[in-house]
Amino acid sequence: MTDPLFPGATIGILGGGQLGRMLALAAARLGLRTHVFDPVADGPAQQVCDAATIAAYDDAEALAAFGAAVDVITYEFENIPTAALDILEGLRPVHPGRKALAVSQDRLTEKQFLNQLGLVTAPFHDVAGPDDLTAALAAVGAPAILKTRRFGYDGKGQARIMADGDAQAALDSLKGAPAILEGFVDFSHEVSVIGARGLDGSVACFDPGENLHEDGILRTTTVPARLTPSQRTDAVLLAARILNALDYVGVMGVELFVTKAGLVVNEIAPRVHNSGHWTQNACTVDQFEQHIRAVAGWPLGDGARHADAVMENLIGDDADRWLALAGETGTAVHLYGKAEARTGRKMGHVNRVTPLR
Amino acid sequence: MTDPLFPGATIGILGGGQLGRMLALAAARLGLRTHVFDPVADGPAQQVCDAATIAAYDDAEALAAFGAAVDVITYEFENIPTAALDILEGLRPVHPGRKALAVSQDRLTEKQFLNQLGLVTAPFHDVAGPDDLTAALAAVGAPAILKTRRFGYDGKGQARIMADGDAQAALDSLKGAPAILEGFVDFSHEVSVIGARGLDGSVACFDPGENLHEDGILRTTTVPARLTPSQRTDAVLLAARILNALDYVGVMGVELFVTKAGLVVNEIAPRVHNSGHWTQNACTVDQFEQHIRAVAGWPLGDGARHADAVMENLIGDDADRWLALAGETGTAVHLYGKAEARTGRKMGHVNRVTPLR
Repeated sequence: MTDPLFPGATIGILGGGQLGRMLALAAARLGLRTHVFDPVADGPAQQVCDAATIAAYDDAEALAAFGAAVDVITYEFENIPTAALDILEGLRPVHPGRKALAVSQDRLTEKQFLNQLGLVTAPFHDVAGPDDLTAALAAVGAPAILKTRRFGYDGKGQARIMADGDAQAALDSLKGAPAILEGFVDFSHEVSVIGARGLDGSVACFDPGENLHEDGILRTTTVPARLTPSQRTDAVLLAARILNALDYVGVMGVELFVTKAGLVVNEIAPRVHNSGHWTQNACTVDQFEQHIRAVAGWPLGDGARHADAVMENLIGDDADRWLALAGETGTAVHLYGKAEARTGRKMGHVNRVTPLR
Repeated sequence: MTDPLFPGATIGILGGGQLGRMLALAAARLGLRTHVFDPVADGPAQQVCDAATIAAYDDAEALAAFGAAVDVITYEFENIPTAALDILEGLRPVHPGRKALAVSQDRLTEKQFLNQLGLVTAPFHDVAGPDDLTAALAAVGAPAILKTRRFGYDGKGQARIMADGDAQAALDSLKGAPAILEGFVDFSHEVSVIGARGLDGSVACFDPGENLHEDGILRTTTVPARLTPSQRTDAVLLAARILNALDYVGVMGVELFVTKAGLVVNEIAPRVHNSGHWTQNACTVDQFEQHIRAVAGWPLGDGARHADAVMENLIGDDADRWLALAGETGTAVHLYGKAEARTGRKMGHVNRVTPLR
């Protein structure tokens, strides 16, 4: 696909969660239709899309019908099964592409890729099996974190090793999954850059945001982040280098640790990112529209920000505060249409904005 | 209904056009579901709503099922048939209410209501039948405009009478529909106030916008409008007076002529309004979310504006410029998902914003 999609065309979205929902709403603003593929019915995205396929990711027939029904395919999560991709790629363009998925699906591959680009990551060592942990600890040192190579998110699939004696318990908790051992990074705070690359190779980044996590889950993102002007420039250039190296199309989240020695890349996510939700109320073109523009072959927005912003996630019971939050001046409430407020579940977020004057 | 609707509740929307579409998108941001009722399938709103009923407005069974399936009912157009309202009001709250509809459905009732409130309108005279036109012309004088009392929009159902000799042709063009004759108002420009009133009686207005029409159709709205500080205050107070008098719940558009003698009310629309589309990219809570908040019993947004804005309608072939418009910096493109770009058809709009700094 080299021509932009016309209004009325259909974007296929793999995944029916809140990111898919907000992508679908952004597509609708641009007159584009959406077709959501997800194994579970009545998810956040299906409530707002034009068409939905409820099927498993290994249902070849459903995938083929979905591919035939859409004009381009994107996704809200990076753990797309390879076999599903094989089918879909044969039918329609998939953005972001295979290289970005391969790199971001696997913590080992990701870190190797970033190091090859000349970017700094946490020290790490492959832990292919139980026998490798001793060598890994010797190389990386304790304290460290054992992380599964694949399928980790929001702090899941991770175990801390504060001293060598914790090693066996950490290994046990990962149940034999291939892992890497990551050394600790002495950082003052975490920031993220939400970058986008268009089909024409143009790159646009939003201003970096500063992230605060609790229990492994993003709690708030504050913009502007505490960064020196040169750190800010570094952060954006670094994101652009990753986007270009992957021949990327779409929005990417790049999480960075700020250290005395410079910026350290924590991880990349080949999709719209929770730390970019602030753009909805502080930018003319937000991260969701930016992603849709990119995968549709449209020109990117410029990423300019008209307000300072603090995004706060509403997790579990937090969402019970919806009425009080809706009554706050200068606060935009975003809720995801999820019925059940389970502990740790992202139910919505608010953006508190202060216009730049 | 006095309690606010909980997230997950369903807003029923009568009408599946672009206003319904943008209402549905705003409701989705707040975690509310939408169910659209319209006689025609695959309209702009149906592409983004959670459920749709395709049925005629005189289909009592479909109306009853729709009413039973939703928690509150609103609409995107004022010409709801009375019989449909009779059914729906018996089932669920309908906002804005009957009084607002009765007043705004009929140009004669509307002007009488406004005059009783002490507000200035164009001079007018009832033209119940052909025999009344002579008396009306004598009272109002030529030039004047003969308008059908009901079902007029975007300049339809109107005929100019520049001199007495035009009277018969004007009458013929209205095909015997009950009408009023309106005198010309000597105005410098038109502005509109988009006001909202909550279920608790609170009122919030957006800054007035200045409207430019071409061929009877809104072409652009520019904010801020050219108004003196006292005119601006008058405009907002006047809108609030109308909202309160109607015990109104929801967003209303109030069109005003600016004259040397003060503000003259042109007409009111009991719904979100084309001249309020600029709020989408210049306010934290836009007119669509404001309307949803009102009918759901949520607190209103404050109407604050963080940017100057020019809204331009994309009418008919204008929408062919979508790619160039998407490439403009500081411009937000909104397209309605309509397949066919007929002459005079509103296909979308753009908001060009300049942040206040």
